[in-house]
Amino acid sequence: MKHHIKIPPPGPNASHIIDIMKKHAYNSTFIYPLVIRNGHDCIIEDVDGNEFLDFTSCIGSCPLGYSHPGILEILEKYSKNGTHKIAGQDFYSEEHAYLAQKLASIIPENFKTFFINSGAEAVENAIKLAYRKMGPLPGVSCINAFHGRTLGALTFTCSKPVHKFNFPELPSKRIKFCVDDNDPEIDAVEKLLKENKIAFIISEVIQGEGGYFVASQQFIKNLRKYADKYGVPLILDEVQSGLGHTGKWWAFEHYGIKPDIMSMAKALQIGVTAFDKRFDPQEQSVISSTWGGGSRIDMAVGAKTIDVIKKDKLLENATKIGEILKKGLSELIGKGDIIDVRGIGLMIGLECETKTKRDEVLMKLFRKGLLMLSAGQKAIRIIPPLIITEDQAHEGLALLHETCKGN
Amino acid sequence: MKHHIKIPPPGPNASHIIDIMKKHAYNSTFIYPLVIRNGHDCIIEDVDGNEFLDFTSCIGSCPLGYSHPGILEILEKYSKNGTHKIAGQDFYSEEHAYLAQKLASIIPENFKTFFINSGAEAVENAIKLAYRKMGPLPGVSCINAFHGRTLGALTFTCSKPVHKFNFPELPSKRIKFCVDDNDPEIDAVEKLLKENKIAFIISEVIQGEGGYFVASQQFIKNLRKYADKYGVPLILDEVQSGLGHTGKWWAFEHYGIKPDIMSMAKALQIGVTAFDKRFDPQEQSVISSTWGGGSRIDMAVGAKTIDVIKKDKLLENATKIGEILKKGLSELIGKGDIIDVRGIGLMIGLECETKTKRDEVLMKLFRKGLLMLSAGQKAIRIIPPLIITEDQAHEGLALLHETCKGN
Repeated sequence: MKHHIKIPPPGPNASHIIDIMKKHAYNSTFIYPLVIRNGHDCIIEDVDGNEFLDFTSCIGSCPLGYSHPGILEILEKYSKNGTHKIAGQDFYSEEHAYLAQKLASIIPENFKTFFINSGAEAVENAIKLAYRKMGPLPGVSCINAFHGRTLGALTFTCSKPVHKFNFPELPSKRIKFCVDDNDPEIDAVEKLLKENKIAFIISEVIQGEGGYFVASQQFIKNLRKYADKYGVPLILDEVQSGLGHTGKWWAFEHYGIKPDIMSMAKALQIGVTAFDKRFDPQEQSVISSTWGGGSRIDMAVGAKTIDVIKKDKLLENATKIGEILKKGLSELIGKGDIIDVRGIGLMIGLECETKTKRDEVLMKLFRKGLLMLSAGQKAIRIIPPLIITEDQAHEGLALLHETCKGN
Repeated sequence: MKHHIKIPPPGPNASHIIDIMKKHAYNSTFIYPLVIRNGHDCIIEDVDGNEFLDFTSCIGSCPLGYSHPGILEILEKYSKNGTHKIAGQDFYSEEHAYLAQKLASIIPENFKTFFINSGAEAVENAIKLAYRKMGPLPGVSCINAFHGRTLGALTFTCSKPVHKFNFPELPSKRIKFCVDDNDPEIDAVEKLLKENKIAFIISEVIQGEGGYFVASQQFIKNLRKYADKYGVPLILDEVQSGLGHTGKWWAFEHYGIKPDIMSMAKALQIGVTAFDKRFDPQEQSVISSTWGGGSRIDMAVGAKTIDVIKKDKLLENATKIGEILKKGLSELIGKGDIIDVRGIGLMIGLECETKTKRDEVLMKLFRKGLLMLSAGQKAIRIIPPLIITEDQAHEGLALLHETCKGN
C-alpha cells in the first residue's frame, strides 16, 4: 500500500498550523486535522509525513491527482513569468484565448465562454445572462440543489438550512429533483412554466453537495422539452460533475440533450460560464471581473488538464474504475452502515443509515489513511482523481469493507 | 525611457490572439488591443515585444509590479509542489495559516479572516456575516458605489446602469457618497437608520470603479457614529483601496475609524472577508467555498507582498510618489481635457471634460506606451504599482502633459 500513517494526525506540525487557524480564521468546513503539504499520484501528504489515499480529488478540483508531470511542467514554465495574474477582462493573454479555443472542442457548438473566479461565480454569470435576456423574473431550481454560496447562486441552492439561515433571496420557484422516471412529479415543471413567467431553469444533472443523487433520464429530458416549449433558457450546472468525472466531458451527455447556458469550474481550475451565442449580451461590460480570465497559471493548467484527459483516455478510465468501485461498494449494502450506492463513473454516493454512522465511518477511514468527504445529510462522497488505478480502487474498497462490516 | 512601442498594437501576434477571443469569448471589458506576455518592474510587455509603462497595476492587483524577485522566488518554490490548488476550506495548509497570521498584524485587533476567491466574493461574505447576525433586512449602500458583480454584491453596486440592467436585487437603501464635509446630506444616514431596520451599511472609502472619489472625513466618521448609535454593522470595502495604494494599509486609516467587517482582494492576490469576532457565526458551514483558502500560490504571494511592502517601505513610497503625481497632474487642469484631479496616495482620479475626450486621451497614451484605465463616467484611473519610482512618475507625467495640452 502506498499510503501510510506514521503519526496519528494531527501530528506536531499539523497541530501548530491548526492552532494558528483557530486563532485567526473562521472554522468553515474543516472536518479532519489534515494539513496538506504535498502529494503525488492519488496520494496526499500532510505536514507530518503521513500519506492518504485520496478519494476526494479536492471535490473534483484535482482531476489529475497530485504532482502530475504535465501540471508540474506548466508550473515550472510560469515560475519565470512576471505577469502570472493579470486583470483578465481588461487585458488579453494567450492562455485565455487558447483555453477558450480548447473548450470550444468539448462544449456544444456555437457556445461562447466567459472566464471567472469560482464555481459560484460561474453560476452567477449563467443566471445573469439569462436574466439579461428574460428580465428580472423568478428562476426555477431544484429542491436539494447546490449552486454555490454567493447570494444569487445561493437563492437557487437548497440543500442545507445552515447555508441559508437569515440570508435574503431573489425571487425563485422550486421543483423536485426526480431520480426516478416514474416519480409523479416528473412533469411538474410544465405546470410551473405554464402558470408563471420564468427567467430560467437551473439544475445539476448529478446533485453534488446535495448527496450525489443522479437525475432520472426523463427528468432531464423534460427540463429540456418544457424549457423549449415555453421559451425559457435551461442552465445546467456542471461545476462538480463536469470535465470527466462521470466518464463523459459533461454529465448532461448521458442524457442526449444540451443546455442553453452551463457553468463549470473545479476540474478546469477556473470558473467558466459557457452559453449559446443567443445569450451573448452583444454589449460590453454586462458581465466582467478583474481576475476573471487573468489567472494565467490556472488557465494553462486547465488547458493541460483537457489535453491529458484526451491523451491518457481518462474518460474511459473514469467509466472503467467507476464500475469496479460501484460493484465493490454495492457489496457493502446491508453490512451495517451502508444502505445505498448511486452515481455515474467516478462520482459515487454511498448513503449511510444515519449521519452519526456516516461521520464515524469517515473518521475511521481517515485514521486508516483513506480520505473521503461527506455529501448531503448522510452520504459519503467518492470522487477520486481521474487517474485512479484498479489497484488503488481495490485498496480503497478493502479499507471500506474492513471498516464497515461488523458495524 | 524604458517603455518602447516597436509595432503599433495590435501587432501580428496580438491580432492572432484577439481573433481567437472574438470567436470564442464574450467581449467583456477589453478596451486596448493589448495581449500581455510578460513584464518587469512597472513595465508590461505584449506578445509583439512592445513595452508599456503601467499606471494600472492591473487595477491594483500587481502592487509589486512585474517579475518582482520576491514573487518569482515564490513561484519557483511552488513550481515543485504537486498540491498547489486544494480544497482550502476542507483541508488546511500552512499558507492559509501563515497569511491569516500575517494579516492579523495589519487589520484591526480581534478580527478573524475568511479566505475566498475574489473581491466580489469577499463582499458577498461580508454582507452574509452581517445578515447572519441582523436578519434578512435591507442593506444600505452609496450612490455610485461599486462592490462587485455577483448578485448580492451587485445589489449594493450603483455606478453604471449596464452593470445592473434586467438583474433582480435584494432589498436595499441608498445614501449619497459625500466628498464634502459641508454636503447637506452628510447626516442623511441617521434618518435612514432611525426610520428603518437595517442589516448593514456598506461603503468604499475611495470609490474605485465609480471614479476615484474620496469620501469626506465627516462622511466616514458619521457612518461609524450612526452605525454605532443604531447598532448596525459598518462594512468597509477595501478591495481596490486596500494594502497600500493610499499610503496606508487601509484607506479607512486616513479617517481614524475602523469597520466591523471589511473586504479586501486585488493587491492581496486572494479575496478576504475580515470581521470583528462578534460576527463569527460560531457554527461551521455558514460560509465556505471549495477554492477559498486553497490557492496556495496566491496565498504565498499575498504573504510575500505584505513582507515586501513592509521591508521596502512601499507605503511611504505610495505617499511620496502620489504627491509628485498629484502635483504634476494638477498642472493639467484647464489645459483642455482635464477638469479635476483627486485621490489619496497612488489612487488618483483625473476627471475629463467628456467621456469622448477621456477615451481619446487614454487611447493616445496607450499608443505612446503609457497604460491607464478609465473609471466612472469620464475619469482616468491612475493606480501604478507601489514600487513606482520618481523617474517613472515624471515619465508618465511628461506623456500626459504632451498628450493633453493643446487639445
